[in-house]
Amino acid sequence: MRNLKVVIEYDGTEFYGFQKMPSLPTVQGALEEMLTEIVQEPIKITGAGRTDTGVHAAGQVINFRTMGRIPASRLPVAMNSLPPFTIVARHAEEVPVSFHARRDAKSRIYRYAILNRQYPSVFLRRFSFYMPKALDADKMAKAAAVLVGSHDFSSFRAAGTEITTPIREVMRLEVARKGPMILITCEANGFLRSMVRNITGALLEAGLGKLDADGMRRILDARDRAAAPATAPAQGLCLMRVNY
Amino acid sequence: MRNLKVVIEYDGTEFYGFQKMPSLPTVQGALEEMLTEIVQEPIKITGAGRTDTGVHAAGQVINFRTMGRIPASRLPVAMNSLPPFTIVARHAEEVPVSFHARRDAKSRIYRYAILNRQYPSVFLRRFSFYMPKALDADKMAKAAAVLVGSHDFSSFRAAGTEITTPIREVMRLEVARKGPMILITCEANGFLRSMVRNITGALLEAGLGKLDADGMRRILDARDRAAAPATAPAQGLCLMRVNY
Repeated sequence: MRNLKVVIEYDGTEFYGFQKMPSLPTVQGALEEMLTEIVQEPIKITGAGRTDTGVHAAGQVINFRTMGRIPASRLPVAMNSLPPFTIVARHAEEVPVSFHARRDAKSRIYRYAILNRQYPSVFLRRFSFYMPKALDADKMAKAAAVLVGSHDFSSFRAAGTEITTPIREVMRLEVARKGPMILITCEANGFLRSMVRNITGALLEAGLGKLDADGMRRILDARDRAAAPATAPAQGLCLMRVNY
Repeated sequence: MRNLKVVIEYDGTEFYGFQKMPSLPTVQGALEEMLTEIVQEPIKITGAGRTDTGVHAAGQVINFRTMGRIPASRLPVAMNSLPPFTIVARHAEEVPVSFHARRDAKSRIYRYAILNRQYPSVFLRRFSFYMPKALDADKMAKAAAVLVGSHDFSSFRAAGTEITTPIREVMRLEVARKGPMILITCEANGFLRSMVRNITGALLEAGLGKLDADGMRRILDARDRAAAPATAPAQGLCLMRVNY
């Protein structure tokens, strides 16, 4: 039995998220169908991050076990020759049978992209959130710094979803302006459901001058989703990288 | 009577080109419908460049005459609030009644984007041509230099289309590698139908080592479309800017 690891990117616009669901297009469903056709045996995959509906990936990692003999180096070309073309395999390699894309991940890096200028962009439309009101990236960075470290992130967890601990370690939460874009980069050992989009929602308030570092600390300490601002839209979010 | 000039961008993927056609979605048709709704009178527009089906624009220029009183500064916001959202107005200004977006243009700048690496990209998919075979940008630049200047571009003109002179002045034809991208920038006083895509088709051959500067000169001198390589696909092409 071989275990193959593949780094993939996808345009999440037309998928109902990563995780397989009956009779709806999902990234996992599409990948399993594609790989089953390539290796000619039923394939089940494991993904490092369960991205939500509309969320993209530039460096999602999956693994799957197979008896098939296709060389890892030929797998991306085979995958990229099959639809849907909104999923691309960047790199594949054989890994020890024990490797598990989700459980073995040490950290995940997400990026949220905001287009912040007077007019939208047709080129970035699918991969960013358009916000015409001026945002102050320095104020956003100051409020963001409060969230770095190990905390109970209940205030930033989608209501009624998970039963695991709400404690996560955010290793990095950076806000940077790059021309008309504001990019929020968040690295953590794991993420609660909608956590980055909920943090981004609060950072948008900070950028508009409605929330400062103290306000952000109060939201965090409340451990209550109702204490935090609204969730930012899915299309600005992208899973950039998974570290092992 | 006022004359308004608007700089627009569009994702050409789902349009049958710029020029209006009965019962097919075109950029001109969509803009005229949008503007007619905004100023509440029938609007006809003039565009600087008649881009083909699937070709994009980052800096197309249009103008139209109206009795409407909407301030130029408010026009982009009004246009961007109406569908289709694959067309964006960047800037609008009032110009002398004599201004004509097509006739007054001194030069137009097009860019052709090639993604040249081992795997495609879901993010650049709509706005570039994916070519996995390695291209030599230096060889492309050398072959491109032959075309700079005033020439009869019959070899690069779509067959059986226009009755105007095939002579155009190419002021600039540059090829540059930028990471995994090869960008071809072409500025000319005017373009024959499919001219940039036909030039790109020949430059792709040069990049693969199948055509050198002498070969390019022979193609140009032949003044015959049949002497030149195939047309490059539409999705890599973008009208970047119009100079007046």
